[in-house]
Amino acid sequence: MSKPSVGFVGLGAMGFGMATHLVKEGYPVHGFDVFPASVEKFKAAGGIPASSLQESASDKKYYICMVASAPQVQSVLFGEGGIVAALPHGATLILCSTVPASYAQSVAAKLQSLGRGDIHFVDAPVSGGAKRAADGTLSIMAGAPDTALESGRFLLQAMSDATKLYLVPGGIGAGSNMKMVHQVLAGIHILGASEAMGFAAQLGLDATTTAEAIKSSASWSWMHENRLQRLLEEDWHPGASALTIILKDVGIITTSGRQNQFPTPLCTTAEQVYLSALLQGYGPVDDASMVRQYYSEAVMKVKNTKSAEETAEAQKLVLDMMEVTNLVAAAEAIAFARYLHVDLKQFHELVTDAAGASRQFITKGLEMIEGTFGQGSGSETIDDAISRLEKAVQKARDLHCPLHLGNAAINTLFLAKRHGLGAESSSSVIKVFGRD
Amino acid sequence: MSKPSVGFVGLGAMGFGMATHLVKEGYPVHGFDVFPASVEKFKAAGGIPASSLQESASDKKYYICMVASAPQVQSVLFGEGGIVAALPHGATLILCSTVPASYAQSVAAKLQSLGRGDIHFVDAPVSGGAKRAADGTLSIMAGAPDTALESGRFLLQAMSDATKLYLVPGGIGAGSNMKMVHQVLAGIHILGASEAMGFAAQLGLDATTTAEAIKSSASWSWMHENRLQRLLEEDWHPGASALTIILKDVGIITTSGRQNQFPTPLCTTAEQVYLSALLQGYGPVDDASMVRQYYSEAVMKVKNTKSAEETAEAQKLVLDMMEVTNLVAAAEAIAFARYLHVDLKQFHELVTDAAGASRQFITKGLEMIEGTFGQGSGSETIDDAISRLEKAVQKARDLHCPLHLGNAAINTLFLAKRHGLGAESSSSVIKVFGRD
Repeated sequence: MSKPSVGFVGLGAMGFGMATHLVKEGYPVHGFDVFPASVEKFKAAGGIPASSLQESASDKKYYICMVASAPQVQSVLFGEGGIVAALPHGATLILCSTVPASYAQSVAAKLQSLGRGDIHFVDAPVSGGAKRAADGTLSIMAGAPDTALESGRFLLQAMSDATKLYLVPGGIGAGSNMKMVHQVLAGIHILGASEAMGFAAQLGLDATTTAEAIKSSASWSWMHENRLQRLLEEDWHPGASALTIILKDVGIITTSGRQNQFPTPLCTTAEQVYLSALLQGYGPVDDASMVRQYYSEAVMKVKNTKSAEETAEAQKLVLDMMEVTNLVAAAEAIAFARYLHVDLKQFHELVTDAAGASRQFITKGLEMIEGTFGQGSGSETIDDAISRLEKAVQKARDLHCPLHLGNAAINTLFLAKRHGLGAESSSSVIKVFGRD
Repeated sequence: MSKPSVGFVGLGAMGFGMATHLVKEGYPVHGFDVFPASVEKFKAAGGIPASSLQESASDKKYYICMVASAPQVQSVLFGEGGIVAALPHGATLILCSTVPASYAQSVAAKLQSLGRGDIHFVDAPVSGGAKRAADGTLSIMAGAPDTALESGRFLLQAMSDATKLYLVPGGIGAGSNMKMVHQVLAGIHILGASEAMGFAAQLGLDATTTAEAIKSSASWSWMHENRLQRLLEEDWHPGASALTIILKDVGIITTSGRQNQFPTPLCTTAEQVYLSALLQGYGPVDDASMVRQYYSEAVMKVKNTKSAEETAEAQKLVLDMMEVTNLVAAAEAIAFARYLHVDLKQFHELVTDAAGASRQFITKGLEMIEGTFGQGSGSETIDDAISRLEKAVQKARDLHCPLHLGNAAINTLFLAKRHGLGAESSSSVIKVFGRD
């Protein structure tokens, strides 16, 4: 049986991989992009070039939108000569762009008000990076009415790993919210990778050795491991993931935080550092370049002249700083997810296997979600965590090294202590965000 | 009756003014500095040059130390050929440098352990800037045993304004603690001046008009008014107050915050921006240059092309942002002062007339100290304050303008709201720092 034609808009790093993967799977994919060069490249990869948005959508029972932002989505869907007007009756429209949940909901409402309630609309942001997009092994967080999910499911399955298609309960907007709370972790850990490596350099530590120690420790984060090579090699121009991309996602988070009047101290701190770097011209550059906000030269140039004992001591400061900061990041993300009524078990399962993962989220985050504070991971208290982080932050201060996230984390822990939580398990730091 | 000889070390911007003022008052002042040029300049101004520390201290019944930092104090007092060994029996030693309270206490202990308990030691940091130093109208916060205070009082009085010599209860360290909590405000407001003016520039507002509006509003801060001319004229090289000076004071605060495990979110945020600027080479430059962390050109170049209505609206965002941020700054400083058992009435009186002053501290800060939340200044709630600040922060985000303090402030207010304080008076935000 021949596979159905699919319309596709947005042939950037992610979209190109997704669209060409569908081509490899045997789908006739009609691709469009505002950059003609991208359409040409898509044609060379076996895709069917569309000369206009309208052409990409006419007679297509299935359509995938992967442009970069909500304003772009609005324009390609509803602008003159746009997709919605061209889609046939009963078509399935899958929005994979990362957008605010409230925006995804506004698309559904607009379809209704235009009399196009016949369109099966699916809110389905993705995660995993360009390589997994091209391999068809993305994580996808799909929310929609059941009929729409049923209709689009085979395509979502084609683009995602067998175990990583998450059907998120809650309808339109639920997928976007799930992606957003995942990005709380991604947004913090991307800066965290640079903060740890910059701090290590300021301490005079060898970059590669420290990075290896981080990878096999409780400080591990997916982002640190993923960004490491680019960070060490200063492979930033243009690199694989521009600063502007994570900055856009973080902006969705902090805007939503403000709309919900919910605190996101670490994510906001990361955002402010990203904005500062944007002002310095780092926008189009890979986000691994954030290490420059902590150390002014290549971290690979550092030659460790310490004794073995001094090295172990300094390395412990880096690992402690990163571990405790990631713990507070997990608390921030889970508290916000809980506030937004995100399914926390599914959130934990998804993150564990995605770009927002960290050892702290996987272990202590589960305690936070299950309410089993301190039962699963020994008995470190908030006071203990403060004590470890305090040494690292003081040392950074003595070295005049910025430690944006480490400082935001320690202030959050101090607030927890001020609210009487000092002797409780360190995972109890989530309680500083209040009860719902 | 002839005035007694006074020894003096540390002829920098502040020390030079203090020492030459004493000369004008008729004191024979024997001045020393590590920079021979400073000693020469002091001689030209009528001072008596000392060729060594020892010479500056031998036979001096009164000695004033105004070097830059605790390590320098340690070296000039106790190093080889240092001051303490040269001072005569029963001398009065006044330490005006800004140092941690714990360090001032260690000096007293060291004098005892060296068998020099005969020395009347006074912990007396100053505030007010170089001009007031030269005029003998500084604010001085002096703490010591009564006999030492009695002995040194005439000199403290000679250097301070008639109403600005504060005898701080609590002995050695109390003066330094008072100075430190004052500097919480100074450290935040210095960055706040740049944040407000940078945000105004990003909004396309005329710098001078906006600054005038700030001055006559509830957003006023002493630092904004004081730094304004240098900020507008970009008179930064070397300028009147190097970034490294406020960075040193802020470091004392955040270190003490960590030692006391007390959160200082806004002050820490300012510190991290200062450290980032240090990494960019701004260390020796005037702190008014921090505006460059928000806007990449001279703010005076902005030409306002808005309508009167648009201008009023944009200006309100700047004023609201600054006012609410200063409110949260007041809460942070007062909460920390209370935790350190600083006399809060004296703290309020002192700040009101010093460099840490802001309209918010003067009005809402008094409510916080007296526990008369909302009775003195209308009935704005935390929810109302959030609503005003939220609009400004969102607008800054839309413009890609960093707003470090504004974001730290709104997260603090969100935490207060999460702890059930939303409907209480905005001055109740201090409650988020917990009870003692």
